[in-house]
Amino acid sequence: MTNEATMVETFIDRFKLEDLLKRRFFFDQSFAIYGGVSGLYDYGPMGCALKANMIQAWRTHFVLEEGMLEVECTSLTPEYVLKASGHVDRFIDWMVKDKQTGACFRADHLVKNQAETLIRDRKTDEKTKSELMNVLVMLDGMSCDDLHEVIKKFDFKSPLTGGDLSEPVSFNLMFPTEIGPTCDQRAFLRPETAQGIFINFKRLLEFNQGRLPFAAAQVGSGFRNEISPRQGLIRVREFTMCEIEHFVDPTDKRHPKFEKIAHLELTLFPACNQMEPKNPQKISIGNAVKLGIVNNETLGYYMARTHLFLLSVGISPDKLRFRQHLSNEMAHYAQDCWDAECFTSYGWIECVGNADRACYDLHQHQKASGVKLVAEKKLGAPKQIEVVEAVPNKQLLGKEFKSDSKQILAALDDLTEAQIEALEREVKSNGKYRLSLREGKTFELNSSMVEVKRFEKTVHVEEVTPSVIEPSFGIGRILYAVLEHSFRQREGDEKRCYLELPPLIAPIKCSILPISSNERLDPIIFAVRDQLTSREISSKIDDSSGSIGRRYARTDEIGIPFGITVDFESELQPWTVTLRNAPTMQQIRVSVSEIGEVVGHLVKGKMNWETAMAKYPIFNAK
Amino acid sequence: MTNEATMVETFIDRFKLEDLLKRRFFFDQSFAIYGGVSGLYDYGPMGCALKANMIQAWRTHFVLEEGMLEVECTSLTPEYVLKASGHVDRFIDWMVKDKQTGACFRADHLVKNQAETLIRDRKTDEKTKSELMNVLVMLDGMSCDDLHEVIKKFDFKSPLTGGDLSEPVSFNLMFPTEIGPTCDQRAFLRPETAQGIFINFKRLLEFNQGRLPFAAAQVGSGFRNEISPRQGLIRVREFTMCEIEHFVDPTDKRHPKFEKIAHLELTLFPACNQMEPKNPQKISIGNAVKLGIVNNETLGYYMARTHLFLLSVGISPDKLRFRQHLSNEMAHYAQDCWDAECFTSYGWIECVGNADRACYDLHQHQKASGVKLVAEKKLGAPKQIEVVEAVPNKQLLGKEFKSDSKQILAALDDLTEAQIEALEREVKSNGKYRLSLREGKTFELNSSMVEVKRFEKTVHVEEVTPSVIEPSFGIGRILYAVLEHSFRQREGDEKRCYLELPPLIAPIKCSILPISSNERLDPIIFAVRDQLTSREISSKIDDSSGSIGRRYARTDEIGIPFGITVDFESELQPWTVTLRNAPTMQQIRVSVSEIGEVVGHLVKGKMNWETAMAKYPIFNAK
Repeated sequence: MTNEATMVETFIDRFKLEDLLKRRFFFDQSFAIYGGVSGLYDYGPMGCALKANMIQAWRTHFVLEEGMLEVECTSLTPEYVLKASGHVDRFIDWMVKDKQTGACFRADHLVKNQAETLIRDRKTDEKTKSELMNVLVMLDGMSCDDLHEVIKKFDFKSPLTGGDLSEPVSFNLMFPTEIGPTCDQRAFLRPETAQGIFINFKRLLEFNQGRLPFAAAQVGSGFRNEISPRQGLIRVREFTMCEIEHFVDPTDKRHPKFEKIAHLELTLFPACNQMEPKNPQKISIGNAVKLGIVNNETLGYYMARTHLFLLSVGISPDKLRFRQHLSNEMAHYAQDCWDAECFTSYGWIECVGNADRACYDLHQHQKASGVKLVAEKKLGAPKQIEVVEAVPNKQLLGKEFKSDSKQILAALDDLTEAQIEALEREVKSNGKYRLSLREGKTFELNSSMVEVKRFEKTVHVEEVTPSVIEPSFGIGRILYAVLEHSFRQREGDEKRCYLELPPLIAPIKCSILPISSNERLDPIIFAVRDQLTSREISSKIDDSSGSIGRRYARTDEIGIPFGITVDFESELQPWTVTLRNAPTMQQIRVSVSEIGEVVGHLVKGKMNWETAMAKYPIFNAK
Repeated sequence: MTNEATMVETFIDRFKLEDLLKRRFFFDQSFAIYGGVSGLYDYGPMGCALKANMIQAWRTHFVLEEGMLEVECTSLTPEYVLKASGHVDRFIDWMVKDKQTGACFRADHLVKNQAETLIRDRKTDEKTKSELMNVLVMLDGMSCDDLHEVIKKFDFKSPLTGGDLSEPVSFNLMFPTEIGPTCDQRAFLRPETAQGIFINFKRLLEFNQGRLPFAAAQVGSGFRNEISPRQGLIRVREFTMCEIEHFVDPTDKRHPKFEKIAHLELTLFPACNQMEPKNPQKISIGNAVKLGIVNNETLGYYMARTHLFLLSVGISPDKLRFRQHLSNEMAHYAQDCWDAECFTSYGWIECVGNADRACYDLHQHQKASGVKLVAEKKLGAPKQIEVVEAVPNKQLLGKEFKSDSKQILAALDDLTEAQIEALEREVKSNGKYRLSLREGKTFELNSSMVEVKRFEKTVHVEEVTPSVIEPSFGIGRILYAVLEHSFRQREGDEKRCYLELPPLIAPIKCSILPISSNERLDPIIFAVRDQLTSREISSKIDDSSGSIGRRYARTDEIGIPFGITVDFESELQPWTVTLRNAPTMQQIRVSVSEIGEVVGHLVKGKMNWETAMAKYPIFNAK
């Protein structure tokens, strides 16, 4: 949601950036030779390496650092799973159609664009403007009726023909398909990776030896059939997500490592500030949790860790904020939700969602699958409880129902207390009970087959359905925001664009440029390359014929942070080369025997450029 | 295809292995709490790490080592792309139905199973056996009629009911879906990642500064709607592929690095040996290419590199062979094709395909998209050629056709020589010409709008459509074969199973086990852990209460190759720990200050266990 009050005044020449990204094949529209498909993008070698580095950084920052359990689940998902999760019924956007041409538009996007245009229009009176501002604030959570109301009230029209628009109709954003040859198993491509983790909760808890809290993570594809995607990498139909599901005792959402990050200052934009409207505020996450602005420590912990991650991959701190969901846009079960938003030339863009989803997902899948999705929690003191049990006569059931008896036993074991009491009443009054299995089969049991027993039991544990805190990262959006935030033009020579990417994620860390193609330089080039390769620092030799300045410009464009030049001075014993820092274009002279270590330290952030400048002689190109 | 003559006599207790893999959550059937979906599997933390390490090893071995261009394309693929590639028409399996129940079976699998049963049956006469053996050899390339013939001839029945089977019907294996809200853009999930690379050929060639040969690579998901998948990870509906497309001059398929691997001995199973039948043969790849058994150096180079990769991740050399496709199973355009097959308890399984696909794919997409997919090749000497050109009158066209004129100019530029000559004839005889655009529009041009000119031109380059050599890796299958090949049972204690995984791909490299939970040992444990972490060696502390033997058994099960025990002897200055090699259970005593380096060298293969045993004192557990 764009918010005029908090708009950062930065100008990005998006067309220049996009030209660079396309020309150097960071990414491009998929199936471009066929005219392309909107909302689908292919990553070329540079984009692919950048993305892989970003995912690797994410894994190190979250999965390794926090000892998370990583899983990999399928994209194909049967309909019943997404029915249980609520996606079949509620994962929709509202769409309006041009009544003349049938062209489809996402209703909220249409309202946003036309409202913003009207607000900017001098002829619009102040009252209307203020009403429209209010529409923009509330837009993310609007219902079908709300949207229809707004479209009628302000007389919004089709942006293509100026003609009338239909009433909003719902459109499910999941891609449908079918599994198997008989077309009887309806399925969808997953709209998020989270459900795969919930489905595997039992195994993961087991893997964690039954202990709470623990976090599971997944990196994978998500698919959303956007109605009319337009904003480049921001709104796509197939994307990579990195999701974490942190399972925690619902009555104790403290986090053991919260103290470590409590001092961190984040820019928060709470719901109340958005409503008033008031600006976002800077506040330490410790205080935000203490004051109840952020619901709990675990949620706050992940917000702080998200903040640190985003800065480490190149998001500008002044273009990052955490916006709280308004009550109308938050799911009914969610406790609290904060989107990490990055400012780009498209406005403020949600890049990471941090949500406390309570126990909704596990509850839903437990209900639908009939499998208990709970953890055992040790009680402070043992407790006496009364237990009601349906005790089967196994022998008799086996004789009567043969191979079905195993299912019957499992079903009896799964009965709730209320169901057992119903069984007791039935058997008492009619002498029989009709047991329904999940698969739809039913069996008639009589009083000799099952007996209801009551007894006292000492329990040391109780079952709880864990709450889930979910940080969910859209990698493509973060990547695009990082590209915008790292885009630079050389002062006084605006045609020379370059990317100031953090070495951590730069596709290639270091270029090696021989000053001439003279073979005499080859042994030095190979020695330099070996120094880098043995430290696993990716490098690129550019021995093409362009001038050294032109070749530097080309490596700057693709965000290579460091460059080594081998010149004829290099041949003097001991061999030396120049090392260049791309953003400042400053150069130092370093011996070949040290170059691998120096670049290694610079790339890993163990040394900064200023220290290197102080330690080694400065080189001034002629 | 199982071939009795080459069957390796190894017994694997698959049920024990599967129990281990499920219990320790390497992988499990997807949506298991809902009863599971056949052909879909989720990877748990151990499987996920194993797979990630395998993909990383693949990237290092191929992409980095060979300087390949890695791309990442979408899974969603419009129908017209897969129409052009031939998948819409030919990516099918033959399916037979049980006439009574409608249950579906893959025809070739049904034939294989029933033929094998008959061959094993003592009552089958020798003539029939020999006919059935022949059926098995030819099976992979059988047409619908062939299959129907076989089923009728041997009177094969439904394996479920014993009832009659329908004639084979074709079933397209791609998952269909639709892109966009209006359901007018039919699409499929990609059955292979290769097409994404072909589509991007032009950009990749540009990225490689127009030079041939070069290779592009992609790691990603593929989807195949298998008719009735049953064999665990071997036949799944969603899988990870690693594919390489090596583009090369069709008249020169030499490989500059062929000499480096020419001496390597591979087990080859050429088509002629399969037909005779004769056993596979061991031969150096250099000789295989020289003798024409393998079509060319580039194909041979990749086969050798594939061989090396598979051994490095843990495939047993005696359970690996390269089987050549028979002429009836090879695509009509393919020059040669060799599958790397691994022997498992399911028989010989195709894990990697190595195919010379000639220029088929680029040709097809060029034809369908109208975009030239060619490379320029320098001629030995400049050549004079006669050129025919349709020269437009741009001004007039612009005036007449306004915004359409751009498309018209492009279409004129795209005309082939034959089309230009047709235009010339038309204009001469009727004074006009009807130009058809790819999108279906047509425009009438007259003689003043376009003129046909002929002239001589000196050319220094010629256009060629590159040939494509494609090594295609099925990661899940390789992973499963590696698990079978690394599965061991302790001699004399068969219940104790373990995995002897190469450290390169082991999910966790080293365990750290304190002999007791006494806090006094903590500083030593932390020192050991720091030594490992600083070298990026993944480790797992198991401080649970089980005996040390039991904890070792548990870490052996998940293939942790090395184990460090911290005992009370460790406290003596200077601190020492024991280091255990899982496969041999031998232990040595190493000082804490050296332990990181020692484990690092062992994990990276810079030192083997024998050397470590010779260098450090042997430790005998009491």
